[in-house]
Amino acid sequence: MTSHGYRVAVAGATGAVGREMLRMLEERAFPVSECVALASARSAGSTLRAFGREVVVQELTEHSFEGVDVALFSAGGDRSKQFAPFAARAGAVVIDNSSAWRMDASVPLVVPEVNGDLLDTRHPIIANPNCSTIQMVLALQALHQVAGIRRVVVSTFQSTSGAGQGGMDELMEQTRGFLEHEPVQPRVFPRSIAFDCIPQIGSFSPTGYTVEEEKMIFETRKIMRLPELPVSATCVRVPTQRGHLESVTVDLERPMTASEAQATLAAFPGLTLVDDPASGKYPTARDCEGRIDTLVGRVREDISLPATLHLWIASDNLLKGAAWNAVQIAEVLHQKRILRAR
Amino acid sequence: MTSHGYRVAVAGATGAVGREMLRMLEERAFPVSECVALASARSAGSTLRAFGREVVVQELTEHSFEGVDVALFSAGGDRSKQFAPFAARAGAVVIDNSSAWRMDASVPLVVPEVNGDLLDTRHPIIANPNCSTIQMVLALQALHQVAGIRRVVVSTFQSTSGAGQGGMDELMEQTRGFLEHEPVQPRVFPRSIAFDCIPQIGSFSPTGYTVEEEKMIFETRKIMRLPELPVSATCVRVPTQRGHLESVTVDLERPMTASEAQATLAAFPGLTLVDDPASGKYPTARDCEGRIDTLVGRVREDISLPATLHLWIASDNLLKGAAWNAVQIAEVLHQKRILRAR
Repeated sequence: MTSHGYRVAVAGATGAVGREMLRMLEERAFPVSECVALASARSAGSTLRAFGREVVVQELTEHSFEGVDVALFSAGGDRSKQFAPFAARAGAVVIDNSSAWRMDASVPLVVPEVNGDLLDTRHPIIANPNCSTIQMVLALQALHQVAGIRRVVVSTFQSTSGAGQGGMDELMEQTRGFLEHEPVQPRVFPRSIAFDCIPQIGSFSPTGYTVEEEKMIFETRKIMRLPELPVSATCVRVPTQRGHLESVTVDLERPMTASEAQATLAAFPGLTLVDDPASGKYPTARDCEGRIDTLVGRVREDISLPATLHLWIASDNLLKGAAWNAVQIAEVLHQKRILRAR
Repeated sequence: MTSHGYRVAVAGATGAVGREMLRMLEERAFPVSECVALASARSAGSTLRAFGREVVVQELTEHSFEGVDVALFSAGGDRSKQFAPFAARAGAVVIDNSSAWRMDASVPLVVPEVNGDLLDTRHPIIANPNCSTIQMVLALQALHQVAGIRRVVVSTFQSTSGAGQGGMDELMEQTRGFLEHEPVQPRVFPRSIAFDCIPQIGSFSPTGYTVEEEKMIFETRKIMRLPELPVSATCVRVPTQRGHLESVTVDLERPMTASEAQATLAAFPGLTLVDDPASGKYPTARDCEGRIDTLVGRVREDISLPATLHLWIASDNLLKGAAWNAVQIAEVLHQKRILRAR
C-alpha cells in the first residue's frame, strides 16, 4: 500500500472473485492507500491476507463507503442493487461484477480493450460484463474491426468456479464421492456435475434460453455497440475447476484467411494466440488458469462457407472474466485521472 | 442362442464396443446360432461371457470367417481394411464400425432410421457411421423432412469412452492422481483430460479440422444425401465416461416453432424428447448411458433469426453411436431376408 493512493473497498471480499480482486490490486501495484474488505455479517470479523497484512473483514452496510474512492463489487446482484447506490452517493466509483446494472442504459458495460473509450467521463457505476461474454468479445472485436461481423454462434464449456468457491468444492466432493461409490447430492448445481456436463447455467427464461445465454447475447451487443447482431449461445457447465472455454463460429462481412485472422487476433490487446494444432498447441482450461490474457486457438476457415471462421477461446473466468477486468477498469480510471486520490 | 440362426462373428470382441455388440445381440434376441469372438493374438485364448456361456476368444486372421453369415467389426480401421475383404469373400456381410470404408462410394453408410432404405440389396460391406455423426443425423433428418436444412453448426462434448476402455481408464487414473496430487501422464489422450477439456479428437488435417470434425461433416452429407450441406463441427473431449453431448444450431429452409420442432423430433424413430427445462428436464451424459435411443432437449428458436433452431443431443456413444447401430443394421438385414441363415 501507498499513502498516496485510493481508498479501495471490495464488497464480497471473501468470495472466489473478491479474493482475486484483492490479489490483482496487489499484483498490479494499483495505488491503494487503504483497503476496506466487505462481506456479509456471517464473515464480518474474520481476517484475510491482502497487501502483505491481515485485513479485518467488515460487514457490508449502507455506511461502508465513507471516504471510499473505488468500490469493487462481487457480492451478487441483489447486494449490488441494494448497496452500490450508497457507495456512489458516498462519492465512490462502483465497478460492479454482478449482472445488476449491466443492461441499464445509463451504465457503461466495459471491456477496456473493446470499449474503454466509454471511461472518458465519470460514471457513478460501471458494470463488469459476464465472464463468458468478456473473453468472447475480445476476439469478436478484433475480427470486427477488420472484416465486420455478421453473426455469432457460440457453445461454452464453463468451469465450476463460475459458481464460486462452492461450485469448485461441489465438483471435488462429488468426484470423490463418485470414486468411492458414495454419491453426493447436488447443492450448487442443478444436477450432479462430476463426470457429466449440464446444459444449464442460471435459470431458464420463457424463450428457452438460460439467463447466462441471454447475457452472452445482450451484453455482446451492448459492448460491441451492434444492437442487432445475431448472437446464439448455448452455455454448458463442464466438470473443470477454473477457466471457461468457448467454441465460436463467426460469419464475417468479408472473407478472411485463417492466417489473416490469426495475425489480427494476435495483435489485439488482451489476446494471446496459442494456435499450432499440429504441434499440439491449442488452449485448454488448465492453460489459461492464473493468466490475465485470453487465449485463442484452433482458428480455421469454414470448409463450406467463404466468410466464416471458427475459434476456440480460453480464459480464466475469475481473472479476465471477473477480477482482472474490474481491476483493469480501475487502472484505466486511474490513468485517465477520473478517480480522485487522497 | 438358437439353432436356427446366424453364425455371427465379432471382430474386436474384447474392446468396449465389441463387448456392447455381444450384449446388444443377446439383449435384442438376434437369432445367433454360433458366436465367433475375434480379437488380436494378445487376447486369443481368453474367454468372455456372451449368450449365457463362456466364449473362447480366437485370433482375428484371414481364415476367421469360414461359414460366418454376419461379421461385426470394431477392431480399428487398419484391421477392418485388412480383414473385412476376407470376411466378405467368405460370404459374410460385414458391418464395420471403423472409419475404413465409410467414405467408399460403393459402401453404404447407414443409420437405419435415416437411410435404412439402402439396405434393400446385399452389400458385402456396410459401414457404421462415426458415433458423434449418428446421434446428430437422427435429429437433422427429422427436421429436414419437415422444413429442409440449410446449414448446421455443431460443438460436441464427447466422453472418454469414445477412445475405448483405455480412455475411460485414463480419465479415472488421472482423476485419482489429481485428487492425490500425483499427476498421471497422458497416454490415450494428447493432454491431461482430468478436470479439463481437449479440443482435439483424432489428428489434425491441413485444413485445421480434426479427423473427427471432418467425419461429422462428410459423413453427415453422405448419410443425408445432401452433398453440399454446409456443416461446421468443433469436437471436444470432455471428462465424462460415457455418452456424447452435442450443441447443434440448424438453419432451416422455412421457420419452425420450437413446439413444432419438438413434436417432429419426438415422432422420429430412435429419438426421445427430454425437453422441459423449467422442470430441470434436459438430457445429460448420465441420462443417456445404457439407452439405445437418442435424447433431444433444449429445443428453442433463435432469438434473432427467423428460421434457426438450437438443439441439445445426448446419446450413448457405445450403443447408438456404435454397437447398437451395428446390431440394428443386422436386424434390418435379417428382417429384409438379406442375410442367409443356416
